[in-house]
Amino acid sequence: MTRSKGPVVAVDLGGTKYIAAVIGPRGKMLSRVYCPTLSHEGHARIIDRLAASIKEAVKEAGFKLRDMAGMGVAAAGIIDINRGLITEAPNLPKWRNIPLRDLLREEFKMPVFVLNDASAAALGEHCLGAGRGLDNLIYMTVSTGIGGGMIINGELYNGTDGSAAEVGHMIIQVDGPLCHCGHYGCLEAMASGTAIARMAEERLRSGWTSILSKSRRKITAEDVAAAAKKGDVLACQVIDDAAGYLGIGMAGLVNLFNPQMIVVGGGVSALGERLLRPARKSMKQHAFKLPAGTVRVVRSALGADSGLMGAAIYARRQAGGKP
Amino acid sequence: MTRSKGPVVAVDLGGTKYIAAVIGPRGKMLSRVYCPTLSHEGHARIIDRLAASIKEAVKEAGFKLRDMAGMGVAAAGIIDINRGLITEAPNLPKWRNIPLRDLLREEFKMPVFVLNDASAAALGEHCLGAGRGLDNLIYMTVSTGIGGGMIINGELYNGTDGSAAEVGHMIIQVDGPLCHCGHYGCLEAMASGTAIARMAEERLRSGWTSILSKSRRKITAEDVAAAAKKGDVLACQVIDDAAGYLGIGMAGLVNLFNPQMIVVGGGVSALGERLLRPARKSMKQHAFKLPAGTVRVVRSALGADSGLMGAAIYARRQAGGKP
Repeated sequence: MTRSKGPVVAVDLGGTKYIAAVIGPRGKMLSRVYCPTLSHEGHARIIDRLAASIKEAVKEAGFKLRDMAGMGVAAAGIIDINRGLITEAPNLPKWRNIPLRDLLREEFKMPVFVLNDASAAALGEHCLGAGRGLDNLIYMTVSTGIGGGMIINGELYNGTDGSAAEVGHMIIQVDGPLCHCGHYGCLEAMASGTAIARMAEERLRSGWTSILSKSRRKITAEDVAAAAKKGDVLACQVIDDAAGYLGIGMAGLVNLFNPQMIVVGGGVSALGERLLRPARKSMKQHAFKLPAGTVRVVRSALGADSGLMGAAIYARRQAGGKP
Repeated sequence: MTRSKGPVVAVDLGGTKYIAAVIGPRGKMLSRVYCPTLSHEGHARIIDRLAASIKEAVKEAGFKLRDMAGMGVAAAGIIDINRGLITEAPNLPKWRNIPLRDLLREEFKMPVFVLNDASAAALGEHCLGAGRGLDNLIYMTVSTGIGGGMIINGELYNGTDGSAAEVGHMIIQVDGPLCHCGHYGCLEAMASGTAIARMAEERLRSGWTSILSKSRRKITAEDVAAAAKKGDVLACQVIDDAAGYLGIGMAGLVNLFNPQMIVVGGGVSALGERLLRPARKSMKQHAFKLPAGTVRVVRSALGADSGLMGAAIYARRQAGGKP
């Protein structure tokens, strides 16, 4: 068995949780260890815990570390792909220029490759999910934040440094609400799960009645989604507004990339057509007819696994290409 | 002499004027005929006049039509590149699904290729201008409108249909001013020559004093540029505001593409550093540090010829690839 055909370690490192997994050829998930990230603990402790989880995942899959062909890490944030650095990460506070690749290479003595989590998800959906066989595809993850990944001419496009496809930080309202990233009116500040929760809170404070009024704790996007399912007017309007903004962001991408497909993943995409129908309508209203007629807007097929799958594929390709 | 090494006809068809030229290998301009488009006349009369100008350009260069290796047409609007259609063109009113390629093929019995004018300019700047040898490059033309073209992984990226890179129609202010395209708050409505003229008019109407107050006719972007050169406060502020918005659009592109360079052309780019300095500053404020640190924002090197040069290169490559 050549190593590049062996199983690989795949990691999905997010602001809230991380997953370490062992994945065999053709995307077969052999083991999977899930942990909260506890991002306030700082990167050194997080990477220590992550290393322990990776060892556990390899053991659980019935392998030794030396059986692994390599490791792919899909991480939140702005990644310098050439140097394996997390340069900044809105959802991992204080992670600045963390050399994640080199730290893991040193610990595990295997080829390690770090890429942006949404770029990994784009690769996963392109190879194994909703966008198989397409040349031009945008992946958007809508959850706490909004991230993205791009397949261009059949290949993952990472940009010059590896930081491309930050679709959540297109500014769509110059004087809009403050975004996590420090700017105002980013798509992320208008259409993410965080934005949905904020818009619902704002309306409750301004006196709307809603089944959400009874909540004693901070409203979440999940609460809004559940209320919308019950027909709550406030919740339905908030979701329509967020979907409208999401569609405006999609229209920008459609006018820029003229893609065949936009794949939507992330927690908020669990709303399904309740989100996608108004988002699609808004996209078609705001984009040019030709590219708007070409693009299909669909839900992720791999769901929460798209990033892990993409990290595995990326590691296998990169490791396979090197001696 | 094989035809694909011979001279080609290059056309740059804009809303205000068109140019028909004959271009030899390595971008040597052999002749050049310039005419107003008179866009109100409708496509049939315009195409008739264009055909006459093409014949004139070929004659002026000392060739016969049969010596031409092909024809490249850089046209304003949303081009279906696969079918050679101008599907819509904000600056060519009533041009809807005009089969420009087939009309010119029939007339001239030579291979004809139609592409978006700003995409052609991107190709021109990549092969012969400011962006030689770069892999990832965005071209932005800032004139009456704002258009764009993209070089990705060293190749012109046209998207699925050929309509990619419409950088002027990213929405940056959902409730902003009405754009030519029918939507509100597009970058084009906030930072083009048209926007500069509008912002100056608005301030004059609201009572600002300025050397522009004396003008008896409609203010143009050129008037504002000239006034800014003389230190006029209103004109300087309008240009700073437009440059600020332009920088916000650039930041979106930088976050999405992580390019090595943004090349700025079009009439408004004649402002040079007066426009680019504040635009660059705004881009750096609004983009992530890693890609903002990588990208260089420079003026077009080929100026008004970039579209023509790109059309010639495109025609030569496409014609060369076919029997």
